[in-house]
Amino acid sequence: MSLRFRIVLVEPMQEGNVGSVCRAMKNFGFDDLVLVNPCKLGDFAKAMASHARDVLTDAKTVSSLKDALSGVDVTVATTGKTAVDDKRHIRRRYLTPVELRGLLKDKDGTVALIFGREDHGLTNEDLELCDLVVTIPASEEYPILNLSQAAVILLYELSGIEGGGFSLASKDLMEKLYVGFEGLLDDIDYPEHKKENTSIMFRRVLGRAMVGNVEYFTLMGVIRETKLALKRKEKD
Amino acid sequence: MSLRFRIVLVEPMQEGNVGSVCRAMKNFGFDDLVLVNPCKLGDFAKAMASHARDVLTDAKTVSSLKDALSGVDVTVATTGKTAVDDKRHIRRRYLTPVELRGLLKDKDGTVALIFGREDHGLTNEDLELCDLVVTIPASEEYPILNLSQAAVILLYELSGIEGGGFSLASKDLMEKLYVGFEGLLDDIDYPEHKKENTSIMFRRVLGRAMVGNVEYFTLMGVIRETKLALKRKEKD
Repeated sequence: MSLRFRIVLVEPMQEGNVGSVCRAMKNFGFDDLVLVNPCKLGDFAKAMASHARDVLTDAKTVSSLKDALSGVDVTVATTGKTAVDDKRHIRRRYLTPVELRGLLKDKDGTVALIFGREDHGLTNEDLELCDLVVTIPASEEYPILNLSQAAVILLYELSGIEGGGFSLASKDLMEKLYVGFEGLLDDIDYPEHKKENTSIMFRRVLGRAMVGNVEYFTLMGVIRETKLALKRKEKD
Repeated sequence: MSLRFRIVLVEPMQEGNVGSVCRAMKNFGFDDLVLVNPCKLGDFAKAMASHARDVLTDAKTVSSLKDALSGVDVTVATTGKTAVDDKRHIRRRYLTPVELRGLLKDKDGTVALIFGREDHGLTNEDLELCDLVVTIPASEEYPILNLSQAAVILLYELSGIEGGGFSLASKDLMEKLYVGFEGLLDDIDYPEHKKENTSIMFRRVLGRAMVGNVEYFTLMGVIRETKLALKRKEKD
């Protein structure tokens, strides 16, 4: 029963930032780093990693954010851009680092902390893979932090958190639940033009709820039973 | 009635760190930067400062830490090296950033946050000018943070703090109190070999107590009256 953290950098462009994130990770006791299509990592990355060169060497490189999230139970996006969201009617809730710590403190599972590109952050497609969104409260005049500085603040805030006994349903299980829900929408002839937004809303609500294993099986059961009942009625 | 902060970098060696500190300052609403004998600041410092280039341009450069502290009421050293202290018998107390925030929240005055060199931090001579010492709790395996990452954590933790009505005695006044106390040690024929350590202890105790203006005048009055009484007795 404990929390494990994976740091995911999506397409980092400056090797110095990658090195700085490695150092920040080791400073606060984290070691699982996954890089999605990173820039070339050379001497400057190593210099900035300093005595955390092992974190850099052990980092896994993958070609998509989805691949980076294998084995993860909860995905947390970090963003400095609270206003940018193309689905404004299904608005996301933004957490502070302290609120995130509070939400995670009784949980058991693997949490991915996801950081975006230096210039454009995370895309809306990236964000759709994220259950929670955390933003560091900063000056309105200049709210965008450097990548490695945002990372060190989050790692500082989450360091020492031990988690608890609330066992989280994995992303793979949750994906089955979402697919089941989308199937249900088909079965009840839900209006076609509303399907996408409703599915996204369902994912967001359950994503930020951090569904447990037991809860997952109960919810999945309800969807399955509903589908079976629909089929029975059809036959009648 | 409010708190003002000055960020002081003592002999920073890497221009990228100076730029990153500027960005972190603007991210969290700080603008008073003083550099003590900094390295050459060129294009990379500007690049790392990004949209906080004004903080870099407006930074004041001085040639000693003492000069950097003009007009300051409380000096806070940051260090990752809690163990290094040549006066172990007068051990310092180390605050966490959260504890520092707690101590400052009802104060009125100017606080200097002092960061040391990338390689050796602050010297013992630097530390003697500091009232409080703050250390960021980090992994025992690798507790030394990058300069700009230590700065961003502290600025994050102190951002939004407004202070209160407890008006702090200035460093200049406190220096008079310390000199007065040392004079008292002379007047009472205090053992010569104990004078230095006792003076340092007095500075440390009152430094971390963050003496207020009213308290200063009371303490100064006690020392003055004691000296006068000693003189009267001498005449008798």
